[in-house]
Amino acid sequence: MKSIVVTPRVQGSLKLMDMDIPQVGEKEVLLKVLKVGVCGTDRDIIAGFYGEAPEGSSYLVIGHESLCRIEEVGSGVDTFRKGELVVPTVRRNCPENCESCRNGMSDMCLTGHYKEHGIKQLHGFAREYAISDSGFVVKLPESLSDAGILLEPLTIVEKGISVSYAMQNSRLPWRPERAIVLGAGPVGLLATAVLRLKGLEVDTVATRPEDSLKARLAEQTGASYINAAKNPLATLESRYDLVLEVTGNVSVAVEAQKLARVNGIVSYLGIYKETTATEDAGKIFTDLVLGNRVYFGSVNANKKYFQAGVDDLIRIQQEWSGFLGKMITKRVRPEGLSEAYGPVGPDGIKNIIEF
Amino acid sequence: MKSIVVTPRVQGSLKLMDMDIPQVGEKEVLLKVLKVGVCGTDRDIIAGFYGEAPEGSSYLVIGHESLCRIEEVGSGVDTFRKGELVVPTVRRNCPENCESCRNGMSDMCLTGHYKEHGIKQLHGFAREYAISDSGFVVKLPESLSDAGILLEPLTIVEKGISVSYAMQNSRLPWRPERAIVLGAGPVGLLATAVLRLKGLEVDTVATRPEDSLKARLAEQTGASYINAAKNPLATLESRYDLVLEVTGNVSVAVEAQKLARVNGIVSYLGIYKETTATEDAGKIFTDLVLGNRVYFGSVNANKKYFQAGVDDLIRIQQEWSGFLGKMITKRVRPEGLSEAYGPVGPDGIKNIIEF
Repeated sequence: MKSIVVTPRVQGSLKLMDMDIPQVGEKEVLLKVLKVGVCGTDRDIIAGFYGEAPEGSSYLVIGHESLCRIEEVGSGVDTFRKGELVVPTVRRNCPENCESCRNGMSDMCLTGHYKEHGIKQLHGFAREYAISDSGFVVKLPESLSDAGILLEPLTIVEKGISVSYAMQNSRLPWRPERAIVLGAGPVGLLATAVLRLKGLEVDTVATRPEDSLKARLAEQTGASYINAAKNPLATLESRYDLVLEVTGNVSVAVEAQKLARVNGIVSYLGIYKETTATEDAGKIFTDLVLGNRVYFGSVNANKKYFQAGVDDLIRIQQEWSGFLGKMITKRVRPEGLSEAYGPVGPDGIKNIIEF
Repeated sequence: MKSIVVTPRVQGSLKLMDMDIPQVGEKEVLLKVLKVGVCGTDRDIIAGFYGEAPEGSSYLVIGHESLCRIEEVGSGVDTFRKGELVVPTVRRNCPENCESCRNGMSDMCLTGHYKEHGIKQLHGFAREYAISDSGFVVKLPESLSDAGILLEPLTIVEKGISVSYAMQNSRLPWRPERAIVLGAGPVGLLATAVLRLKGLEVDTVATRPEDSLKARLAEQTGASYINAAKNPLATLESRYDLVLEVTGNVSVAVEAQKLARVNGIVSYLGIYKETTATEDAGKIFTDLVLGNRVYFGSVNANKKYFQAGVDDLIRIQQEWSGFLGKMITKRVRPEGLSEAYGPVGPDGIKNIIEF
């Protein structure tokens, strides 16, 4: 079967390879992969920044965003049937089975020894057939047989927003009215939609023009689009109850701190590669204290957030027809992998590979 | 009666003044002030950095840390009797009575128009008799007739720790084992004691020698003392579930971010005056995200934390005899105000004024 692999830490090693269809274990499911999505993590792995092959393997099958059908179930699995539409989660428990992993929260793994399909020590889903532990797979209705490929990026949003609400509600009577989403790629647009579903006024910020696809999709949900190329973040007021930073740009991350109102919360969901200094740490820390503000980081997502994401994908489809489909701006076959893993282009949002 | 006043924003205006004993209003109590404590906020007001007189007054009575007895109650007050030992809280509701203030949480005031005794638009407690709204006063047992002067600084700690636990418990099964307290002034030592009461292993950091009073008091509670002059913060591991930053030093605030372990929380309780740049914001934000970490600020405290503080003062007295008394390293009469508001000295911790 066709598989997309890299030699971890070797730039330019991306290739299509022929592999045997894997054998399903007792508690596992064999997945027929319909689609995989491409994100910044895949591009970083291809660039050789990180990625780790499974023990005993010299290569890593990449791909962690997927939409699949059950092809076969292990002898000990009675929760799935052949043909069901599913998405496997990405992360698996650490060998120590730490308290977080033991409680279904490998996204909060305490040892750092978790594994991740397509990223760290487990082959990914960019192949015709893949294997997953059946305990880490969620079912989707047939209505999501295309848009379901957006579930994994949506789960990053679900976790960030859910944890924001949980922490805020634990410390005050919180009735958020206004949110700002920094970034309008797949994660930013999905965050915009989820916050609009919650009834918040949302400003979504990117650097594309006002007539770009990103701007139009944000506005389809009733959000306001801000073109940061014309209206720099530094000119915006500190008036947001919730700030979601998803650009991964460190200068934006610093500006994000200044956008939260008193008692506000800033959720960081990006990875920041640049080595940049902030201008005035003293003022930032003082504002943090005097405004009772919270900054927190969130990575990965566990099964609970995948299940919440399925519900929200259905609601987004009902509220804003075509929104999810328009986010998928390039669809290629496995043979077109160099196109799939290349840049999305100026008005592109999400590239996917269809098996 | 003797009152200690400043002309707000005028450096060197601190003086003893004669004032009339104030008239008690219907819902108010007249307080006979026994002691007031001196903290960095008082010194900042005296230095002219901030402070605001009540409407129509050219001066401000300072003092927000106090221990008092009820002298007289207003006609509409039936919750207090003459002679009871009490401490008034510091902050009062904004005129808009915002949702936070309305819910007894003026420490989380949304408008910023709150008032503060001895700081902002309300006379303070550094006088023989003072007035407070009876709804913002807590009772203390006679066993706290000396140590009760430490209640107000303790409430800053109570809020920071309580909010840390609330937010962490809202997002994961949190069983913290190790905490670090950055600073060993009154707030740092009280934080050390409260965290030890909770059963945590505590490291308390300051720059004084190992045989200093601060080090000995931290160790009396079973905490380990770290002399940062010999063991710089940058050499410590990221192994703490909870980091409490109370120094108000911006370089320490930056280092604090690096001390939290995965899923850890950093509580900022200081005010940071310096304009300092951080070295590598990119790494700090990435660690925030990849480690699911939380940084938050906390200012002031509402009545709930004063009540929790009374309970903890009693427990501290029971567990570590003499600990609270030794923290009060200078006691002066109102006439010695220049000594009271001067520096605490190398082995000093808390100066108080006894009326």
